[in-house]
Amino acid sequence: MGDFTKLTSKTKNISKWYLEVIDRAKLADYGPAKGTMIIRPYGYAIWENVVSAMDKEIKSSGAVNAYFPMFIPNSLFSKEKDHVAGFAPETAVVTHGGGEELADPLVVRPTSEMIMYDAYSRWISSWRDLPLVINQWNNIVRWEKRTYPFLRTSEFLWQEGHGAHATKKDNWERVIWGIKMYEKIYKEFFALDGLIGTKSESEKFAGAQETLPYEILVEGGKVIQSCTSHDLGQNFSKALGISFQDKNGKTEYVWQNSWGFSTRSIGALVMSHGDDKGLVLPPKLAPVKVVIIPILGKKDTEILKYCEKIKGNIEKLDSEFPGGVEISSDNEKSFGHRISESELRGIPIKITVGTRELQENTVSIGFRLDGMKPTIARVSELSEKTEEYLVDIQERMFINSEEFLKENTFEVNDFEKFKKIMKTTKGLIKAYWCEEKDCEEKIKEETKATTRLKKLDVKKESGEKCIYCNKVAHYLWYFAQAY
Amino acid sequence: MGDFTKLTSKTKNISKWYLEVIDRAKLADYGPAKGTMIIRPYGYAIWENVVSAMDKEIKSSGAVNAYFPMFIPNSLFSKEKDHVAGFAPETAVVTHGGGEELADPLVVRPTSEMIMYDAYSRWISSWRDLPLVINQWNNIVRWEKRTYPFLRTSEFLWQEGHGAHATKKDNWERVIWGIKMYEKIYKEFFALDGLIGTKSESEKFAGAQETLPYEILVEGGKVIQSCTSHDLGQNFSKALGISFQDKNGKTEYVWQNSWGFSTRSIGALVMSHGDDKGLVLPPKLAPVKVVIIPILGKKDTEILKYCEKIKGNIEKLDSEFPGGVEISSDNEKSFGHRISESELRGIPIKITVGTRELQENTVSIGFRLDGMKPTIARVSELSEKTEEYLVDIQERMFINSEEFLKENTFEVNDFEKFKKIMKTTKGLIKAYWCEEKDCEEKIKEETKATTRLKKLDVKKESGEKCIYCNKVAHYLWYFAQAY
Repeated sequence: MGDFTKLTSKTKNISKWYLEVIDRAKLADYGPAKGTMIIRPYGYAIWENVVSAMDKEIKSSGAVNAYFPMFIPNSLFSKEKDHVAGFAPETAVVTHGGGEELADPLVVRPTSEMIMYDAYSRWISSWRDLPLVINQWNNIVRWEKRTYPFLRTSEFLWQEGHGAHATKKDNWERVIWGIKMYEKIYKEFFALDGLIGTKSESEKFAGAQETLPYEILVEGGKVIQSCTSHDLGQNFSKALGISFQDKNGKTEYVWQNSWGFSTRSIGALVMSHGDDKGLVLPPKLAPVKVVIIPILGKKDTEILKYCEKIKGNIEKLDSEFPGGVEISSDNEKSFGHRISESELRGIPIKITVGTRELQENTVSIGFRLDGMKPTIARVSELSEKTEEYLVDIQERMFINSEEFLKENTFEVNDFEKFKKIMKTTKGLIKAYWCEEKDCEEKIKEETKATTRLKKLDVKKESGEKCIYCNKVAHYLWYFAQAY
Repeated sequence: MGDFTKLTSKTKNISKWYLEVIDRAKLADYGPAKGTMIIRPYGYAIWENVVSAMDKEIKSSGAVNAYFPMFIPNSLFSKEKDHVAGFAPETAVVTHGGGEELADPLVVRPTSEMIMYDAYSRWISSWRDLPLVINQWNNIVRWEKRTYPFLRTSEFLWQEGHGAHATKKDNWERVIWGIKMYEKIYKEFFALDGLIGTKSESEKFAGAQETLPYEILVEGGKVIQSCTSHDLGQNFSKALGISFQDKNGKTEYVWQNSWGFSTRSIGALVMSHGDDKGLVLPPKLAPVKVVIIPILGKKDTEILKYCEKIKGNIEKLDSEFPGGVEISSDNEKSFGHRISESELRGIPIKITVGTRELQENTVSIGFRLDGMKPTIARVSELSEKTEEYLVDIQERMFINSEEFLKENTFEVNDFEKFKKIMKTTKGLIKAYWCEEKDCEEKIKEETKATTRLKKLDVKKESGEKCIYCNKVAHYLWYFAQAY
């Protein structure tokens, strides 16, 4: 954290700002192989908080964790035609192992449908084996030409859940459960509002019947597709022969779903909440929830002892926030330098202590969220107050996100207006579309905006026209430029 | 778990028994790529319990978690000559990415020294950056011709910790911390006694100054090298230029260590504690700590309600054991079938309930460890008793392991005796060795036994002779055949 020249302004150049924050807050670094990223301890600690929260949700839903090999023989990988067509261009392939050339090269998993369902075909034979819902926390490789830390890297971390069910109805319930669970994590932990819906034909996952994303709008007016839940229907079960005897002894193919949530979410977090001073982390994901910054001088020993006491008090309380309490007392750094550092790292609460606070048995307390002027708090009530403040910050961050989404969503029924918005402020556009691929492509060509989703509960309209071709359109779609 | 023919006897054919247990208890299955393994939910749940316990130890020692890419450019991988010589023959290599041939092929990590230390060389510049101790939980690839589930697979899961220190002394302390931490986990959680020491020159990690293993003796008299902590000295820091300014402004190379613990440990667990009925899991690692098995008949509803009540009582107690409580009530399976299943899965405590227990407000309780006849316990005191039983089982399992190690360790000063032991009972042999490679190789040729370790606190002797060549030998070494 050597560089304390001012960050690039977020509103002026969000891409440059993003890269500077990632680097200076030590969230990530580049790996030596093209497109790869090192997730540094501070960034990884955020991911650990995500994993911890989500793993509980997954397990309490009845799914179980397991681990499948990352090498998929090419012959197996090629068994579902849409799937291989979609993923083959972005795979990394192992051609040599143990010094010898392999007869059947190994694809490094870009997702685990094929390797898991190959096992499912052996494990499932009766309705008693269903539902089978297995989740993995692992690493994934999808070859990328242009890297953008967290948002687009050749290797990333994620969870992927894979359900096999006896009926279409049970299967759809798990698809919906997946995306609603992600919504809960995004809203409650990331403090990020977003939209759920279904993807257009061209934006679906390779091999899926339906893809449901959670799309988050970030500053600069672009969206991030932040996770997805897929209804795979019977595509894979038919390609791999995953069948079972139902209660009447009839052989049926299983219905399947898969749902994934990756380290990309941290990119969305940084982009959305950060400001010109650096990261702003929601308390539920912050690796450090409180930083205590003493003014160092003559009374060092006494002040540091006081800081330790405050730290102990806060840590003693049974808290719903997983982050630690840090004392920032490196006397090689000035007080101002240490303040800037805590701001860069997005620590939700900052407590400062000087001789006056020491004498009065108080502290000065301030919040990263709004740069509020510090207020004075009595030490006796500090630990409980801190918990209340954190709850309040978490809530206010979500409200900000909700308002941002609302303010930057526009309903448009004129393509000229559509183009103008995409050239200026950007944002999410609601517009009727005829669902023809041609129009979708032309809209993208002319505005860089793609179809993001159609809401789940949207009703079929009559009398509406496509924003591009003016032919009959039945549904309102959301469009935006995407990261 | 369809197959309930009797397991192969462990003492008669331990290899066959091992494979049957792994398969029938659903710990693992084979992956489609050569040498790979699927860790099934029941096996993975054991690993999750290990991770949870060890991650706490790692973090409380001041180390931090992070994630580094698994692809290491071959040019980087080749920078430390001993390291590449040791690992190159067992690597998997990605030669194609995104449809194109790569100019610099990518080695899939067989261990992360090179990729982590490349970053360390950028991150470390001053004594203030030290110590830097980073841990990773990830997947590793080492090409294997013959696979043996958990014990030898082409891909496995592990943690690898990597410390960089300012002084040789600090470094050695972390090396020792690593192996002692593993010892604690093995003793307290796996209930497995073992030996710590240093490896001979030929058995060291490629690129290390010293390798410290924890070696576990299992039934059949062979050992499993169950984890290692390495003193890397300045080999890597010199090869990669990881230097720092010390407090006096002098430039020095850092001292380094690495330590790893893998899913191989689960193989040691199965091999050591299992018996002819299947797995025997130590309570601290068991995914299910208690199984409640009702005798189903006329009073089904009442009995099942009673089982739920018992389950709730046990779960309510704040327990140091992470496993769950299961009710085994599938009425397609006979009572005996469900008993066998619980034994195969190694569940520590089995509670059976019939109409008599229901009437008397009691349960029958038995322990997997010793197949003890069930005793009767009152429901009112059951939850607290259960915790005590689990503590007791965990302790007794460790005592059994301790005794087994003691009983199968032999001090020998005659090579004929050495040979005879290795042909019959096998076990650990303590013998003086001159530390010449020639003798080590000949002993291996004639007995299949390798040098396992020299104890850390062993004193230099004079007047002793090498077991093989009769020349002067200063130290007592441990020999055994290894998995």
